[in-house]
Amino acid sequence: MDRPNPDLTGTAGDVLGAYLRSQATAFLRAMRLYEESGAHGANGPDAPEGRDATCSLRGAARRISASLATFRPVAETSWADGLRTELVWLSATLADEQAYGTRLTRLMDALHRLSGVPVSELPAQRGGASSLTVGSARAGALLERQLTLARTRAHTASLQALGSSRFHAVADAVAVLASEVPLDPVAAAGPVADVLLPLSAVAEGRLTAAVADLPLTRASHPYNADALIADAHQDAPWHEVRRLLRVHRYAQEALGTDVARLAAAGEALDRHRDAAEAAAASATAARTPRIAPATAYALGVLHADQRHEVEAARFAFQRIWLRTPAAAAVPS
Amino acid sequence: MDRPNPDLTGTAGDVLGAYLRSQATAFLRAMRLYEESGAHGANGPDAPEGRDATCSLRGAARRISASLATFRPVAETSWADGLRTELVWLSATLADEQAYGTRLTRLMDALHRLSGVPVSELPAQRGGASSLTVGSARAGALLERQLTLARTRAHTASLQALGSSRFHAVADAVAVLASEVPLDPVAAAGPVADVLLPLSAVAEGRLTAAVADLPLTRASHPYNADALIADAHQDAPWHEVRRLLRVHRYAQEALGTDVARLAAAGEALDRHRDAAEAAAASATAARTPRIAPATAYALGVLHADQRHEVEAARFAFQRIWLRTPAAAAVPS
Repeated sequence: MDRPNPDLTGTAGDVLGAYLRSQATAFLRAMRLYEESGAHGANGPDAPEGRDATCSLRGAARRISASLATFRPVAETSWADGLRTELVWLSATLADEQAYGTRLTRLMDALHRLSGVPVSELPAQRGGASSLTVGSARAGALLERQLTLARTRAHTASLQALGSSRFHAVADAVAVLASEVPLDPVAAAGPVADVLLPLSAVAEGRLTAAVADLPLTRASHPYNADALIADAHQDAPWHEVRRLLRVHRYAQEALGTDVARLAAAGEALDRHRDAAEAAAASATAARTPRIAPATAYALGVLHADQRHEVEAARFAFQRIWLRTPAAAAVPS
Repeated sequence: MDRPNPDLTGTAGDVLGAYLRSQATAFLRAMRLYEESGAHGANGPDAPEGRDATCSLRGAARRISASLATFRPVAETSWADGLRTELVWLSATLADEQAYGTRLTRLMDALHRLSGVPVSELPAQRGGASSLTVGSARAGALLERQLTLARTRAHTASLQALGSSRFHAVADAVAVLASEVPLDPVAAAGPVADVLLPLSAVAEGRLTAAVADLPLTRASHPYNADALIADAHQDAPWHEVRRLLRVHRYAQEALGTDVARLAAAGEALDRHRDAAEAAAASATAARTPRIAPATAYALGVLHADQRHEVEAARFAFQRIWLRTPAAAAVPS
């Protein structure tokens, strides 16, 4: 479906090496920006430059580790496997802080949308205000407290990770990658079509198989209300497709393919994940002891709203994936 | 859009008279069935024959009063106006009992769907059960208590209405209608095309204008989340279209037109109304003093679920109304 760049010439080593070098350079640039932003010091989690730099760092780390996995036989394997493990650790560690921030913003926006007024203007005490308005203000305050605490902890963990000798070892390895990618001499000498394309086809095959297991026909019927059913496992196959889609997309990026459609499909699954986690955060907040019924009610509305967003993201994904802008949406 | 039966011949009086006579006969038959069912005695609100009979009675009453309104100049006006007022009273009085029953069923089904188990099997006490499960059981019990009480009151009101001298006066007037419809001699003598069609066009025009004011384009984008916004007035234009659609449909029935599409559109708006009222019942139950947070949380989820159904019904209505089974559903 996504055709590799027809102008792709050269050896497997040339193509993969160029991609890895560019990503390693991006990684090192992001590292420098992060250090210059002062985000590791007093500015704390809210410094936007630090946030952008961490985001770029994670993006480059994900691309390097995914390419090293997909095209494993082309790189010097034992060296690549070691770096990959470390990059996965790094991007997972750095992900949390941003995730908590995104979640809080999403939930505050939803409370705002649901109650028709910004959360900051909601009255936290009764006095003519409707149950939902009072509850929304208190729910907002509760979520803000819980997620800000989690985010501060994640920020501390990020700081520790980025100041650790483990991180500096990763940075040294990436610096090696930026100048000279350690490759397997035999595999790297083969033509792209014989070496990289079959390996990227394996990644695509995994994705295609995982997508085939998704209930896409069901998702194509708007308002099927599936995502609201209490079922702890219903999101997992979608999260797995999100992961495999990302691996496939990075392999296609390395091959110079246009990944616009894959990126759009991935954004739908990012929304799916974010909404699912926001819904879970709302359910968790509702289990806080001694909250007022109005707060619990608002958290219930918020939970269902976010599960509704989960369903909307599935609908959007199947529309992008099946490329049928109109035919697939007849309600059941 | 809905073409009148081309075989329609005869005078306005012939056509309207035949329709009113058939509906009056249906009214009297339903009345007899109701009396035979014993629903006015000890069987109480759960006797299905009594329920079916009341439903038929309301259907005939609505059709007679709507036709007398749409085709007002064709009937003997002062007589018709008086009967119409009484029929509106009767069908409004009889509607409540069924509405409360439908609402309770809808809410119990939704709780069942949301929690994945029938409400009757939900544990009402903690003990490993999730917050939503415990809350759903308590929410179900609370809604059942509140709506059953309201339904019993409505049943009593129905019984009183059907036993009243006011009702017997209505029944006498309908019996007159069944044998000889009091018509305006001049208007009734005109051809259908000159008399009834212009009057039905007025009803259709009112409906068309009201539909034009609905946010149908917005409703055509699935998952727009509009129905979840706290806005006490957003449902009113849809309820008004439902009412006007019914008046138009009955006029078309009188003219022998195929009303399948109108009936389908009306069913979508019935669902819209039912879901909106169920959501309101859930919000009302959440304001019960001293409920547990878990109960309030489940009622919040339920409220949002039913508002989601409101949105789904709007989507379904615009699909039926615009008769574009595929093109209108591109997400925004």
